[in-house]
Amino acid sequence: MSDKKKIEVCFSPALFQYYQDSYAIAVVIDTLRATSAICNAFQNGLEKLIPVRTIDEAREYKKKGFTVAAERDGYVLDFADFGNSPFNFTKEKVKGKTIVYSTTNGTQAIQMAKNCHMVVIGSFLNLSYLSNWLVEQGRDVLLLCAAWKNRFNLEDAVLAGAITEKLLASIKYSTICDSAIASLDLWLLAKPDILGYIDKAAQRSRLREKGLDDVIEFCHTPDSAKVIPVLKNGYIVDIRNINKKA
Amino acid sequence: MSDKKKIEVCFSPALFQYYQDSYAIAVVIDTLRATSAICNAFQNGLEKLIPVRTIDEAREYKKKGFTVAAERDGYVLDFADFGNSPFNFTKEKVKGKTIVYSTTNGTQAIQMAKNCHMVVIGSFLNLSYLSNWLVEQGRDVLLLCAAWKNRFNLEDAVLAGAITEKLLASIKYSTICDSAIASLDLWLLAKPDILGYIDKAAQRSRLREKGLDDVIEFCHTPDSAKVIPVLKNGYIVDIRNINKKA
Repeated sequence: MSDKKKIEVCFSPALFQYYQDSYAIAVVIDTLRATSAICNAFQNGLEKLIPVRTIDEAREYKKKGFTVAAERDGYVLDFADFGNSPFNFTKEKVKGKTIVYSTTNGTQAIQMAKNCHMVVIGSFLNLSYLSNWLVEQGRDVLLLCAAWKNRFNLEDAVLAGAITEKLLASIKYSTICDSAIASLDLWLLAKPDILGYIDKAAQRSRLREKGLDDVIEFCHTPDSAKVIPVLKNGYIVDIRNINKKA
Repeated sequence: MSDKKKIEVCFSPALFQYYQDSYAIAVVIDTLRATSAICNAFQNGLEKLIPVRTIDEAREYKKKGFTVAAERDGYVLDFADFGNSPFNFTKEKVKGKTIVYSTTNGTQAIQMAKNCHMVVIGSFLNLSYLSNWLVEQGRDVLLLCAAWKNRFNLEDAVLAGAITEKLLASIKYSTICDSAIASLDLWLLAKPDILGYIDKAAQRSRLREKGLDDVIEFCHTPDSAKVIPVLKNGYIVDIRNINKKA
C-alpha cells in the first residue's frame, strides 16, 4: 500500500491547514454552484476566469471594463453582470472571453489551495473526465470541499465520494482518510437517487427559498463537460490551453 | 418545525466557531478514547475530573499530589499515573476520587465548549441514558466531535449519528444541519455491524499499531453507563452530584 497514492477529503476551508499537502493536486468542489458554473463556462468556451475573493476586488475589475460574475449568499451583487448560476455562463456570454468571478464559498477555497502542486476545479459536470485525468497524473489527491461558510455540506461531500470511488477503481490509489471513507459511503447511499438524496441538504433548501433551485438537477448530472479548469498564475484556464497561455 | 429544537453536529474543534450556540447543550464526543474513559470513570464512582489542556498543567497537578491520567497520541506521559484507556478507570482507582485528565483531543474540545449553555460528555457507554436526558431538557443540542488533531473522524461522526437518531425519535427535535444528516446516515450504515464498520477508521489502525485496540469493542458497546458527566466550574462531575458539589 505504501507505493499507492493517497486520497484525502477536506470538508471545509477552515480545516484546510490540517490537510494541505504541497505534493497533492487539490480539487476544489463547490457543487452548488460555483464549481459547476466554472466547468459549464469552460465547456462553453470561456477563455479565462479571474477568481477574486472580495467584493471590492470584483468591483474594481468591473470599473476597468471586465465582465463580472459575482454573488453572495445566492444574490447577484448590484454592480455585477450576473451571478453564479451555471445557466448564466452560456456560449454567447462566455466564448473566447475573460470573466471575473467571486462567490460566497468557492472562490475563497480556490485561492486557499494555491500552494498545492496544482489546483483544479471539480463538479459532477466533469466527474469522469476529471477523475480519468487525475488517475493519469498518478499524484496524491486532496479533495477540498468549499462547504457553506465553513460548515460541512452534503452535496460537496457526496461529490468528493463520487471522485473517491473513481480513483479507488484505479490500482494507483488507496485511502486511509476518514473523511474520504465517509464521503464514499455517503455517495454510495446517494448514487441510486442523487436528486432524492440531495433534497435533504441545507443548501437545497436555501436555493429553493430564493427560487434558485432550477440548477439542482444540472449540477448533479455527471459528465456534461470535458474540461479540467486549472489555476495558473492566479487565473483559471482550461488545461488544454495552459501551454498556449503560459 | 419552527418550534422544534435543533440538532447540530460539528465535526472538528476547528469548526466550532461556525456552530457555537450559547443556548445549546454541547455534547463532547471523543469515542476513542477520552469520553468513553470519562463515562466509565463516573460509572465506577469517580467523584470529580479536572480536565486540563496542556501537558504543563497536568505536570503541575501531579507535583501537587493529584492522580493524573494523561496521554498524547495514545502514549502515556512519563509523569502520569496512567493514560486514557477506559480500562484504567477501575472502581479501585477512581471511586470517590478526583483525577486530573489531559488527552490529545478530548480535553481540548471540552474546554472549548465551555460557553455553551452546558457541556456534557457523550460516548456509546451512556448513549441511551444521555439521549433520554437530552430529550428531557428539550434544548438545542450541539454534538461536538473531538476529531483527530482537528481532522474529521469516523467513530465520532457515527456516535453523533446514533445520538441524532435517538433525539429525532422525539417529537421535540428536528435537524436541517448537513453534518447531522450525514452522521445519521453513517450511523445507520454502521449500526448492523458497528465493529466491522469502524474497522476502517484511521484511529482504529492507529490504536492497533500501538497495541491499544483492546478498547475498541468496549468503546462501541452501548449503554454500560448511567451517567451524565457535566462541566461545572471547570470540573467534570456526574450530574447527580451537581447540586451537592455546587
